[in-house]
Amino acid sequence: MTQAPEFQSPPTQKAAPTSDVASPEQTPSTPSTKDAPAMETPARSSRIPGFYRLDVDDRHRELEERFGLAADELAILKDGSRLDVGRADKMVENCVGVFGLPIGLGLNFQVNGRDYAVPMVVEEPSVVAAVSNMARTVRKAGGFTAEADDSLMIGQVQILGAPDPVAAVETLRASEQRILEQADAVHPNMKRRGGGARSIEVRAFEEPYPMIVLHLLVDCGEAMGANAINAMAEGVAPLVEELTGGRVNLRILSNLADRRCARAFCKIPEMHLAGNGFGGEEVAEGIVQAYRFAAVDPYRAATHNKGVMNGIDAVAIATGNDWRGVEAGAHAFAARGGRYTSLTKWWREDGCLHGSIELPMAVGVVGGSTNVHPTIRVMRKILDVGSAAELGMVMAAVGLAQNMGALRALATEGIQRGHMSLHARSVALAAGAEGALVDEIAGELIAAGKVKLDLAKELIAAREAAARKVG
Amino acid sequence: MTQAPEFQSPPTQKAAPTSDVASPEQTPSTPSTKDAPAMETPARSSRIPGFYRLDVDDRHRELEERFGLAADELAILKDGSRLDVGRADKMVENCVGVFGLPIGLGLNFQVNGRDYAVPMVVEEPSVVAAVSNMARTVRKAGGFTAEADDSLMIGQVQILGAPDPVAAVETLRASEQRILEQADAVHPNMKRRGGGARSIEVRAFEEPYPMIVLHLLVDCGEAMGANAINAMAEGVAPLVEELTGGRVNLRILSNLADRRCARAFCKIPEMHLAGNGFGGEEVAEGIVQAYRFAAVDPYRAATHNKGVMNGIDAVAIATGNDWRGVEAGAHAFAARGGRYTSLTKWWREDGCLHGSIELPMAVGVVGGSTNVHPTIRVMRKILDVGSAAELGMVMAAVGLAQNMGALRALATEGIQRGHMSLHARSVALAAGAEGALVDEIAGELIAAGKVKLDLAKELIAAREAAARKVG
Repeated sequence: MTQAPEFQSPPTQKAAPTSDVASPEQTPSTPSTKDAPAMETPARSSRIPGFYRLDVDDRHRELEERFGLAADELAILKDGSRLDVGRADKMVENCVGVFGLPIGLGLNFQVNGRDYAVPMVVEEPSVVAAVSNMARTVRKAGGFTAEADDSLMIGQVQILGAPDPVAAVETLRASEQRILEQADAVHPNMKRRGGGARSIEVRAFEEPYPMIVLHLLVDCGEAMGANAINAMAEGVAPLVEELTGGRVNLRILSNLADRRCARAFCKIPEMHLAGNGFGGEEVAEGIVQAYRFAAVDPYRAATHNKGVMNGIDAVAIATGNDWRGVEAGAHAFAARGGRYTSLTKWWREDGCLHGSIELPMAVGVVGGSTNVHPTIRVMRKILDVGSAAELGMVMAAVGLAQNMGALRALATEGIQRGHMSLHARSVALAAGAEGALVDEIAGELIAAGKVKLDLAKELIAAREAAARKVG
Repeated sequence: MTQAPEFQSPPTQKAAPTSDVASPEQTPSTPSTKDAPAMETPARSSRIPGFYRLDVDDRHRELEERFGLAADELAILKDGSRLDVGRADKMVENCVGVFGLPIGLGLNFQVNGRDYAVPMVVEEPSVVAAVSNMARTVRKAGGFTAEADDSLMIGQVQILGAPDPVAAVETLRASEQRILEQADAVHPNMKRRGGGARSIEVRAFEEPYPMIVLHLLVDCGEAMGANAINAMAEGVAPLVEELTGGRVNLRILSNLADRRCARAFCKIPEMHLAGNGFGGEEVAEGIVQAYRFAAVDPYRAATHNKGVMNGIDAVAIATGNDWRGVEAGAHAFAARGGRYTSLTKWWREDGCLHGSIELPMAVGVVGGSTNVHPTIRVMRKILDVGSAAELGMVMAAVGLAQNMGALRALATEGIQRGHMSLHARSVALAAGAEGALVDEIAGELIAAGKVKLDLAKELIAAREAAARKVG
């Protein structure tokens, strides 16, 4: 019943963990990167008991105490319009306004021995609660371990009409050094900071669509790197045309960033999984069977991975990263073996449930909208990651936690019970309930076994009629 | 050099267009659904010349005149915090604030002869401009045609340990009517409104992970349907266990909603594509070659489809739909043939460039957060779609327009030139520029050929020093 975590290695060598990032081999209690406290002192611990029961003002007091947030930073959080319409107008075209999405705080995360409170921007109920609950379970068992490749992105150059394709491929391979130098010349600063163009790959496609594709592998350091890669791919195009005698058509990055993967792992004694009338072994077996369903069936894998991305996208938005790029990389990676399958694996071994995730994680901590959006700066202060690789590892852990939460719910009481209470609050809100009445009406909808708008409206109308009578 | 648009048909019969949705066979000038004006009168036309040059207040005056938006609705748009933190706190757990994303208006869309101004929530520069420009080009050639399947979702039930799998499969198939009745009993209203459980499919998986999977196909009408499908899958589980003698583990919808696809098409005389020093045939050929690159190479397809989702996700968020679900469905669908590939097709025929897109589009116009979020109501008023199918068709057209915009830019001057001016504004903002100074500094960065934060800071500092001197 057990299964080894056999990741398909990407074609290039796996990059060593960067020096400022804890490697998964280090024990969880000795983080190397930051002077995080070994004991759970309130400051910087991601464990904030009863946080979910506080009102927003009390939660802000916790943020002030634990993460040193100032009054103006709390105001930015509370008031979504601090991305004001004037600023938004500089970000996109035809701007007519600003859209608000809720920010929830994922708690209890410990990754490579370090605590993270994880800001998540998402509209769906249950996501933040699920990851926080699962992170708490994993935390009791020592937390997540994680690792990340170097920030290697792929720039693609499409070459058409080379008169002698075989010779063109040879010439390109023989000219690797010249091509890399040309690419680095576009971004000399990147090389000065320790990044830059690393190597090339050349692929030839046959009929029906013959073309040569040059891959430029570039270490983007702490940036996601889209602009840099695009500029470098454009920058080498004239040289590539000269070398091949062909015509360059597309020059752009690939979001299938499979040389820039993040991986996270967890291991939980099965007895810790017991609860709600389910035994630990039963829950572990249910989760493993749920994983196997996703492993063999694309219809299931799509939704399995959708759950993973519920968590990952939410952190991407909160940290100013482009969620469509992360989504495309993840799902295309899930299809790399010829059948679309699960991004996570779950197996039972030595009385423990083991989980792992691996996916491309092209995210940055500099550049993009990270410097433009006032809220992102506050979120980054709460999350406090020091590098793109560290952010990628936290995001992988969040994705794994979300998957575990979903599979646990699905393999036990079903997803509806957990969803229903938040869904009921949405319905109560939609029916016009405000303040304390929202939870009250939601409770009655659930008790009635009918979480429906018309019933919610009836309940509110009945109350209003009664109030008029009293008045 | 031409290629027929051969869509892989989903396994079930293609649903006929619903009665309140224009079919693509109808001519563009005779919309069947709404009394949209055949002439381009200002009201409800999606063509608003010079909109991009207006400031936000003037844009709001256009919205007031053209879409009948009231002052309080314009205030909701302008002030992202109208999703206030109290309301956000009812949507997600551990809420600590509200995050603002820009709303841009995609213009010039005409789908099946009807005009749509398309609200888009996205942080990335160029997306709104690209779709608006391409929609304008397509509009001149008669607009997009589009079609959508019925709102058929798949609910999955995983059955483990059936003592006689072959007999269990037979029994399930023979019990279709009972299973459908049981499912409909969970949601009698859905059936009353013309939707409900339609059919079942039974699939048996062999070693290494033997299991039986029951698919429940349900028409969700105008809702996305996640809650309904989950409840129905849970509702039939006891009957399924009784029929098979097995144990039901997972019961949940699939986001690979390949029975609920939307498709959009466009056809543009090649001469309309000329511009920026490129001939029309040259541009058309470049776009086709760019498509072929995505058709054969997953590394390219990931980014090709990422661009498509730039447009589609932005509309999903604006209309209160779950973008992770749409993403998962789209990308898993892109992998259905065994190799991850392009969601669009482009080919040349009869002097025209032809484009098409097909993808699962599980979106709703009722339920979810559509009723909770104040801004979504305003967006829906601007977009004015009458059905889930109509929304799906518009979103497919937006995805196709975005793809065309990206391929056109990539196959001509490269992506960087278009991006750079908006990127330069971001850099200027990040360096501390405000108001009119943003565009000024951005212009100087581009002129210097160095769009960098340090240069932007230098330019601002120089101005401040000059101002102090004058003062």
